[in-house]
Amino acid sequence: MNYRREEYQMKKGLKIMVLDQGSIELVDWMGDDSDIVKAARISTGASTKTPLEDERLIDYLLEHHHTSPFEMCEIKLKLTMPIFIARQWMRHRMASINEFSGRYSEMKDEFYVPDEFRLQSQQNHQGSDGYLDRTSNIEFQNELVEHNRSTFAQYKKMLDKGVSREMSRIILPLSTYTSFFWKIDLHNLLKFLQLRMDPTAQEEIVAYAEEIWEIVKVWVPATAKSYENHFLQSSKLSGQEKNALKNALAQLEPELKDKIKKSISESKDLKKRHKDKLIDLFLT
Amino acid sequence: MNYRREEYQMKKGLKIMVLDQGSIELVDWMGDDSDIVKAARISTGASTKTPLEDERLIDYLLEHHHTSPFEMCEIKLKLTMPIFIARQWMRHRMASINEFSGRYSEMKDEFYVPDEFRLQSQQNHQGSDGYLDRTSNIEFQNELVEHNRSTFAQYKKMLDKGVSREMSRIILPLSTYTSFFWKIDLHNLLKFLQLRMDPTAQEEIVAYAEEIWEIVKVWVPATAKSYENHFLQSSKLSGQEKNALKNALAQLEPELKDKIKKSISESKDLKKRHKDKLIDLFLT
Amino acid sequence: MNYRREEYQMKKGLKIMVLDQGSIELVDWMGDDSDIVKAARISTGASTKTPLEDERLIDYLLEHHHTSPFEMCEIKLKLTMPIFIARQWMRHRMASINEFSGRYSEMKDEFYVPDEFRLQSQQNHQGSDGYLDRTSNIEFQNELVEHNRSTFAQYKKMLDKGVSREMSRIILPLSTYTSFFWKIDLHNLLKFLQLRMDPTAQEEIVAYAEEIWEIVKVWVPATAKSYENHFLQSSKLSGQEKNALKNALAQLEPELKDKIKKSISESKDLKKRHKDKLIDLFLT
Amino acid sequence: MNYRREEYQMKKGLKIMVLDQGSIELVDWMGDDSDIVKAARISTGASTKTPLEDERLIDYLLEHHHTSPFEMCEIKLKLTMPIFIARQWMRHRMASINEFSGRYSEMKDEFYVPDEFRLQSQQNHQGSDGYLDRTSNIEFQNELVEHNRSTFAQYKKMLDKGVSREMSRIILPLSTYTSFFWKIDLHNLLKFLQLRMDPTAQEEIVAYAEEIWEIVKVWVPATAKSYENHFLQSSKLSGQEKNALKNALAQLEPELKDKIKKSISESKDLKKRHKDKLIDLFLT
Repeated sequence: MNYRREEYQMKKGLKIMVLDQGSIELVDWMGDDSDIVKAARISTGASTKTPLEDERLIDYLLEHHHTSPFEMCEIKLKLTMPIFIARQWMRHRMASINEFSGRYSEMKDEFYVPDEFRLQSQQNHQGSDGYLDRTSNIEFQNELVEHNRSTFAQYKKMLDKGVSREMSRIILPLSTYTSFFWKIDLHNLLKFLQLRMDPTAQEEIVAYAEEIWEIVKVWVPATAKSYENHFLQSSKLSGQEKNALKNALAQLEPELKDKIKKSISESKDLKKRHKDKLIDLFLT
Repeated sequence: MNYRREEYQMKKGLKIMVLDQGSIELVDWMGDDSDIVKAARISTGASTKTPLEDERLIDYLLEHHHTSPFEMCEIKLKLTMPIFIARQWMRHRMASINEFSGRYSEMKDEFYVPDEFRLQSQQNHQGSDGYLDRTSNIEFQNELVEHNRSTFAQYKKMLDKGVSREMSRIILPLSTYTSFFWKIDLHNLLKFLQLRMDPTAQEEIVAYAEEIWEIVKVWVPATAKSYENHFLQSSKLSGQEKNALKNALAQLEPELKDKIKKSISESKDLKKRHKDKLIDLFLT
Repeated sequence: MNYRREEYQMKKGLKIMVLDQGSIELVDWMGDDSDIVKAARISTGASTKTPLEDERLIDYLLEHHHTSPFEMCEIKLKLTMPIFIARQWMRHRMASINEFSGRYSEMKDEFYVPDEFRLQSQQNHQGSDGYLDRTSNIEFQNELVEHNRSTFAQYKKMLDKGVSREMSRIILPLSTYTSFFWKIDLHNLLKFLQLRMDPTAQEEIVAYAEEIWEIVKVWVPATAKSYENHFLQSSKLSGQEKNALKNALAQLEPELKDKIKKSISESKDLKKRHKDKLIDLFLT
Repeated sequence: MNYRREEYQMKKGLKIMVLDQGSIELVDWMGDDSDIVKAARISTGASTKTPLEDERLIDYLLEHHHTSPFEMCEIKLKLTMPIFIARQWMRHRMASINEFSGRYSEMKDEFYVPDEFRLQSQQNHQGSDGYLDRTSNIEFQNELVEHNRSTFAQYKKMLDKGVSREMSRIILPLSTYTSFFWKIDLHNLLKFLQLRMDPTAQEEIVAYAEEIWEIVKVWVPATAKSYENHFLQSSKLSGQEKNALKNALAQLEPELKDKIKKSISESKDLKKRHKDKLIDLFLT
């Protein structure tokens, strides 16, 4: 069954299709927002309180870089993706993995063929920018499909002749699909998602990360909401950047600075400590 | 509620008392024997089969040192133990921990007082051997209780005078009880238990490890049974030890060697590959 | 030999005294700034270039959260510190540790006695704020010294009576000094230092972290300089905080905004991408 | 420069050729046998003693599964290997890695072509057994070389047309060579080598592991010698296997058992505790 995002719910077996033949399957999970606050409150003896107080605690924890309570939740997915993406995926070491073995079993005739070939970015050495013209795109797609077909035929030919699976597979392209179980705690998952939903990540891995992020939003809604504010939408200003902005604002007349301070103070979204932080950083 | 071993069952909230004031609480878990075989069978596409085939696969995996499928199960406990034990516990790095903070909250008036003081072992530099005589034992217990009482009074006196919790606590003894959530996967838990149920481990940590092992036996019975055979009851023979035994047996008359081989071959517990292994190692 | 900061140099055996009886000893290290750039340049085939280009690359890597090249450097220290600090220290799991064993050897008569007792902070539940009055300070110091003396006497009494070391030690206070080798890579060391030099960390651990930071500045000067700007002196603004500041500045007249932009553009410390970032974040 | 095994020495830049185009380069290392004993002796205050005593301590540590002192040594290699091997390599998580990026740089025209194609093993589902006949071998080699040539031409064609590197590379086969820095501590390296020198590992990874083992033998000779005896040449007997052997020997006449015991007792290689262990396990 193929779900659309708005239908996601935390149900074992939920399967989300990604790319042309990939998927994310929700196998199991342990804990949710309430288990994070229970762990964090071990020092006070208190357990979960009102939903509002729980949300505030989660927000406080994320803002202040407490990580251990978020390790108390765990999720297990079954992922199917091209090998060149799986290679990036497995560079994240704080996870448990069981992968399909091309030594033990015959690989399947499944390869990733892009809808649209992206062009080499001139700004970003490791990124893409823009798309190939339509004609060339179709041409390269056809050539890729044909290349995959003949490569797989050669793979089968070697197998048929008795060559071992572990050797025959070396001809297969990096676009070949593989599958693996992936088990990770929430803290490490969030770190992974921040890196892999970043615009500099390869689009194909972003596609997976964004779907998993949708699952996270349903799984631990208070954590996801707060993570969005404190991590995904945040910006880090270096010491030099802060100074430059502070110096630029220092030139303003006192009454203009007061006006800015007043505007910050009246901001509805912020808690008092955040207002003080902004004024302290840039307007004193 | 205090359980006796034979009553254990996988129930959230199960609480087992250990030492004089310690405890193990079963908070949550994810996966069981069937999830191990599902992970291991990702290469064949098959899921769980008959219970017997599943058990055989688990046995095969443990015998051949496959570890990743056992990372697919996770357990979370809440532990209360003296600090000198918690210090040994936390040297195991592959686990997630949230501990009570003596900076944030006042420590409780809870200290471990041994039932019986063990004597210094003369064989094992880091172990104990035998027990103190009854009279001295009572004397030391009383002195310990009195020492804990006066130490805690001094701790409270500093707190009352306004000294911070983070500083006042430094007077408290290593026998002070602390609490923490501990989340770990099954593979790392088994490694931990093997080390901490070992006779060379400190008796107080063995007490905890043995109770957790009882939980494991209920949680993943096939894994526990096989682990017992392949790890807990196993012995590793070095190359030199194997040679010495092989050479010693080589002196026997051929018919005696055949008798030994026959006896091994008729052993009911062993699979054929194990019989061949023994004969190959020591009788060829 | 006791060094003062300005004398530090990367010399095996360098020993820095911390607190009343603690120390940091530089045992060994592997790699430096040049090894970071070598690792980062594996994709281009280039090795180290000019010092300026190398520094720029390191700055770029830290700014863009590349972490793996910084794992390529490793340092090994021998640390002597009170147990309550060692307990915080060892919560950082990505390091290798060999600690003195109170089971194997007799503990030494060494305890941390604070120069000044700090008062409980009313703002920060887990922190201190201000100092105890002089008279009480002396009183508590004397009481602590006397308590340590009598505690150690009781420890020795148990040992003399034949009680095992592993049991006798449980009476010793959390202020007892312990020693351990600590080996960690530069990436994880920097993460550790940022957390443990933070003003919310306990002053006694800050004392160690700050001395190690001095070593880092000598060991990998380009990395330290850049880390200071991008991490230690940086501030993270949440999505909400950024919006509040942006909205506050949006009220200004166009010519005032241009003045601020101009000031930012003329900032000498910043590269063009940083100027664009500030203007893009707050002034468009 | 290409070394032969007997010429290996611990020299930065030592480069060993593996497979048809692969290599292992010794970049750097920290510590040796003497640093292992220094770490282990932190509890006694003693440092290195006589070479013989140091060797004995290392042997004792390995025999009794002490692992932390072996984490105190670190090695850094630069490895060049086909991607299908690199994929197995990177499943070992306790190491630091910096890999050549096919997103950032153009891949080179380097592919692994086996000397001899191995046949699928019928015993071992994931292994090979025997070799392809000579004619077919040459045929498949030629086809592989031709396939690599045309695949790389297609890769270049896409690049020339402006397709991004990160997309063009997905056509490249798993036999494509990649390079990475690999930094790992000695304890984790030994675990890795034991698994990857095992006869069930893929021959191509065994080729790398065996060369690294040669480096280890020169780097930490006492550790390597003892590891060989206690790990590489050892066998683990399960509880059931031990019982079967014990029962088989129990049938022998008392005087024959004494003869076996005597032979074990006279074995020159064994220490007394090993002799006692054997007799205790199988002859009582």
